[in-house]
Amino acid sequence: MTKKLLHLNAFLMSTGHHEASWRLPESNPYANTDIDHYLNLARIAERGKFDSVFFADAPALFAEVGRRPSGSIEPTVLLTAIAAATERIGLIATASTTYNDPFNLARRFASVDHVSGGRAGWNIVTTASPDAAKNFGLDDQPLHADRYERATEFVDVSRKLWDSWEDDATLADKASGVWADSSRVHPIEHVGKYFKVRGPLNVPRSPQGHPLLVQAGSSEDGKQFAATYAEAVFTAQQTLADAQAFYTDLKRRAAGLGRDPDSVKILPGIVPVLGATEAEAREREEELDRLIVPEYARIQLAKTLRVAPSELAFDRELPADLPDEDEIEGAKSRYTLIVTLARRERLTVRQLIGRLGGGRGHRTFSGTPEQVADALESWASQGAADGFNVMPAVLPSGLEDFVEHVIPILRQRELFRTEYTGQTLREHYGLSRPSSQYERVLQEVAS
Amino acid sequence: MTKKLLHLNAFLMSTGHHEASWRLPESNPYANTDIDHYLNLARIAERGKFDSVFFADAPALFAEVGRRPSGSIEPTVLLTAIAAATERIGLIATASTTYNDPFNLARRFASVDHVSGGRAGWNIVTTASPDAAKNFGLDDQPLHADRYERATEFVDVSRKLWDSWEDDATLADKASGVWADSSRVHPIEHVGKYFKVRGPLNVPRSPQGHPLLVQAGSSEDGKQFAATYAEAVFTAQQTLADAQAFYTDLKRRAAGLGRDPDSVKILPGIVPVLGATEAEAREREEELDRLIVPEYARIQLAKTLRVAPSELAFDRELPADLPDEDEIEGAKSRYTLIVTLARRERLTVRQLIGRLGGGRGHRTFSGTPEQVADALESWASQGAADGFNVMPAVLPSGLEDFVEHVIPILRQRELFRTEYTGQTLREHYGLSRPSSQYERVLQEVAS
Repeated sequence: MTKKLLHLNAFLMSTGHHEASWRLPESNPYANTDIDHYLNLARIAERGKFDSVFFADAPALFAEVGRRPSGSIEPTVLLTAIAAATERIGLIATASTTYNDPFNLARRFASVDHVSGGRAGWNIVTTASPDAAKNFGLDDQPLHADRYERATEFVDVSRKLWDSWEDDATLADKASGVWADSSRVHPIEHVGKYFKVRGPLNVPRSPQGHPLLVQAGSSEDGKQFAATYAEAVFTAQQTLADAQAFYTDLKRRAAGLGRDPDSVKILPGIVPVLGATEAEAREREEELDRLIVPEYARIQLAKTLRVAPSELAFDRELPADLPDEDEIEGAKSRYTLIVTLARRERLTVRQLIGRLGGGRGHRTFSGTPEQVADALESWASQGAADGFNVMPAVLPSGLEDFVEHVIPILRQRELFRTEYTGQTLREHYGLSRPSSQYERVLQEVAS
Repeated sequence: MTKKLLHLNAFLMSTGHHEASWRLPESNPYANTDIDHYLNLARIAERGKFDSVFFADAPALFAEVGRRPSGSIEPTVLLTAIAAATERIGLIATASTTYNDPFNLARRFASVDHVSGGRAGWNIVTTASPDAAKNFGLDDQPLHADRYERATEFVDVSRKLWDSWEDDATLADKASGVWADSSRVHPIEHVGKYFKVRGPLNVPRSPQGHPLLVQAGSSEDGKQFAATYAEAVFTAQQTLADAQAFYTDLKRRAAGLGRDPDSVKILPGIVPVLGATEAEAREREEELDRLIVPEYARIQLAKTLRVAPSELAFDRELPADLPDEDEIEGAKSRYTLIVTLARRERLTVRQLIGRLGGGRGHRTFSGTPEQVADALESWASQGAADGFNVMPAVLPSGLEDFVEHVIPILRQRELFRTEYTGQTLREHYGLSRPSSQYERVLQEVAS
């Protein structure tokens, strides 16, 4: 029996996911606006035959700018530049359904899909950020449930727009002078609670039909949304048991909605910190943690927990009377994950800051390449993952190390590809190309 | 005395500006979604040392899809791909102030400016299109005056956002662990009639500070807007006298607003159709006009004139009782230009369709390379132009011909550069880099 291959996504972020990575002597602290830095990262990931690279985003300046590289090139712009410098690797960008119009955004993803020859993916987020709301005329963000309701309609409209040109609408008939068959280019005439959009889209159907749809919310609304729409799911899971429960639950939800559970790929995040020996890896991790400025990190933690920074004493555990998840209108699942982690391991605020500094709630794993490969195989073979969202603590070195030392071990174990077999992002993830919902059923009449 | 050099922008559009260009045997009718086609065009323009390439756009599917290649890759995506394939040429994209949010759009142009090393330009349009309105929840487009009022506030907000990071805000101080000086990253706290935006922008200041601001409206509102904000102006002018009047008026308006008139570059459009002899050029033009499908073109003309297609008889002049420009809420100046052209030359509908088929109201000029160079020099030397918006009827051949045959003549006459002397788009156009409006005046205290 052939083992199922893992899917690997490289989640890229300036000098790395560890918040203090920019302070290392090796790091370029201007990496966040340096296109050559990102082209280099993408080429390394493609050399490793990753399924895709991914950039997170929000339409607001997050975090204290003193703390770490802040502000970034808009991800669809970044991915387009990367498309021109690579051949096969998939290109996934976050974009918000709360702070975009579906016509413009559907057009943009279709455009990236065109210029990349079918390698575009969209990580659909509702943007849990009061700061973002204030950049778009609002005083505070819309309620969690309303954001998801809008997201649902947004994706619905987007799919109609991507389908509005049938695949064979363009005739290019020079002799008769008819460029396209207008009966195969459809106004979508969408009228809903949030959007009224006539269409059709102003770009012909793209190579993948739809970009790959990715989702990362883990709240109740988020999981239901993922089960309905997502083809790949990024998730933060700290323990095997939690990851298995999430995996089983999401696959079951998808099946319950009539979808093939295998058409939803689940990729927990992992922040690998590699060393030639276990001790070396741990030393690297400690070096990074020592570079965290605790005052900055406490401000961020306090913001997430909706308390004043002064309520968090560095050498005590979290206060007992934190709000319930139900009261959080922001990143519900991130909130619960952090509080659960702190309570379970009885971490002081200082220890918690160290744990979060590496991966903002994602699982940090330090060890040898063999140990990291074991960790990945263990989760994948025990029903916790179809692959992983690889979040190097330091970039580019952490990605290079992963490609040079971990991926060869995964290949020896027949757990990862040695060459790309497909051309499009959907093909890398083993997902089919959707046909247009407006496609006419052609009836052959025997005559 | 050194002559003033011309500025040349290459206005690119699928198989060319002539609506029937796609029907030529040489043309790739799928060019509109073919990134390699556009990379090739940009490389040709860069070989010719054009100041910039430019793509028009509207968030709606214009025109009858049967008539000509329709739908296109979103221009900021296209320009980003081109940025990666070129070194120096400027990159100008149209984007609408009526159907975008300033936070997202300002971020996107700053991002293109970052990835291109300072080569981004924004052609600011208010989008005269009822079809576009229907893709954004509206039943009809906002009134002309309201669109311009919104555009004014939109540009104001965008400039604040581009300025929100001072140039030296990033300290990258690894030793102390302070990445940026938060006192040099400013919330903009904009509250206006159309927008409420807190800021700051989520990307550091870009190489040009602001992208080059371009404008193309020629209505009264459009001219006042251009005089206030534009650094380059694209305009459709059919006669030397009209072009001179426009040029003089716009420079005077800019001066009246306290601007150096030379900081507004005026570039009339020209559709050159080249031949080794005058007869050959005219033959080429006639070949193209014969390929126009009159029924399609009449639908488009009727739409612009706000009449039913049946009111336009092919072999008669335009009806006498057309609406006044004041009643047009769409492209006012385009409307007036077409009606004036038809009345002045007493053109039948069929003749008018031929004239518009080449350049949609822009000046078509067929002739030898020498004659085209004469035409450009004549306008520039008589106070009608600082340069030209070159709109090849057929692509890529029309652009190649211009680069190989017209540009060398302009160089012989010392009217065009032989090498780029600057790196950024602003430098190509001889425009200064704006400093941030939030820049603190540093006071040196003698001690």
